[in-house]
Amino acid sequence: MKRLGIVLFPDAEELDAIGPWEVLAFWTRSYPDDGYAVTCLSRAGGPVPLAKGLTVQAHHSFADAPPLDVLLYPGGQGIAPLLQDERELDWVRTQRAVVPLMTSVCTGSLLYAAAGLLAGRPATSHWASLDVLAGLDPSIDVRRDARFVDDGDLITAAGVSAGIDMALHLIVRLVGADRARQVRRGIQYDPAPPV
Amino acid sequence: MKRLGIVLFPDAEELDAIGPWEVLAFWTRSYPDDGYAVTCLSRAGGPVPLAKGLTVQAHHSFADAPPLDVLLYPGGQGIAPLLQDERELDWVRTQRAVVPLMTSVCTGSLLYAAAGLLAGRPATSHWASLDVLAGLDPSIDVRRDARFVDDGDLITAAGVSAGIDMALHLIVRLVGADRARQVRRGIQYDPAPPV
Repeated sequence: MKRLGIVLFPDAEELDAIGPWEVLAFWTRSYPDDGYAVTCLSRAGGPVPLAKGLTVQAHHSFADAPPLDVLLYPGGQGIAPLLQDERELDWVRTQRAVVPLMTSVCTGSLLYAAAGLLAGRPATSHWASLDVLAGLDPSIDVRRDARFVDDGDLITAAGVSAGIDMALHLIVRLVGADRARQVRRGIQYDPAPPV
Repeated sequence: MKRLGIVLFPDAEELDAIGPWEVLAFWTRSYPDDGYAVTCLSRAGGPVPLAKGLTVQAHHSFADAPPLDVLLYPGGQGIAPLLQDERELDWVRTQRAVVPLMTSVCTGSLLYAAAGLLAGRPATSHWASLDVLAGLDPSIDVRRDARFVDDGDLITAAGVSAGIDMALHLIVRLVGADRARQVRRGIQYDPAPPV
């Protein structure tokens, strides 16, 4: 069984984490023979209060989480204090050393930048944080118009809802486009913004 | 303060509830002067295990929830037992009598149909449940190709991700298109499905 882990932290933005959760959990639960499972993890485990007032339970703490094949770090207003949190930065660097595929949604990429993971690489973030991303590490090739940037062992997505598109892309990479289309159909993802 | 309430029940589909939560909570928290707040409620209150394995905390039980101006009922595999649950059907009928605007996402409309709320009215549901919807109440004008159906005091949306579009439409109705566009921009909802 290969494992995808979604990080939860206080004041993470709800859809940053739960958009990809829906896509990935729909996939792994509907197609168990693909051999993947998805889980949510947080530093302490247990309930995590998110940015807009929803509290979601992490399935694992960092300490008891299983080894991951894919890690997804969301963004949100809670990312700001983490950019100066050496314990979190060290944890991310440790994950980078052992997790084959590191991914982020929204301002999750700022944490990767602060940890040095994006040096010299193409990446994106929420549109309102692209200058912050460039400021954290001027060697980053900031892709301002990308929905997500796939750079091999690292994928960064744009703001909030972009995590849904990035998660579908993950299924394309890990299994194939047919499976991603099945999941898209399952969640009836035929977006039609009314404004 | 006017209140929007999102119902949580065991095995509700995650994005059915949390897609609209993101849209509505982003709106109400970013623009408090609009005079709206959004909350999650469940029969018992407290933690609710959802369909794909995520547990989310309801802010209120049905008993202690504030009066609502808008109610949103999501769908998911947990809707099936509720269709024969007289207590839930009675609760929905009671809400219909006092809540000005009743809305649903995905198979949430099946519960409304079972409770008799959709008699003679246009409505939709998840694509795979349209025949079930018609079977529950043959007087329903089933709209098979709609992303959502606004019938005045009742709005039903298609499957899972359609709740995001319906929630933006709610903002259009309650405040206006400019506000809905601001929220759309905030959550960077420029969907680009990769498959």
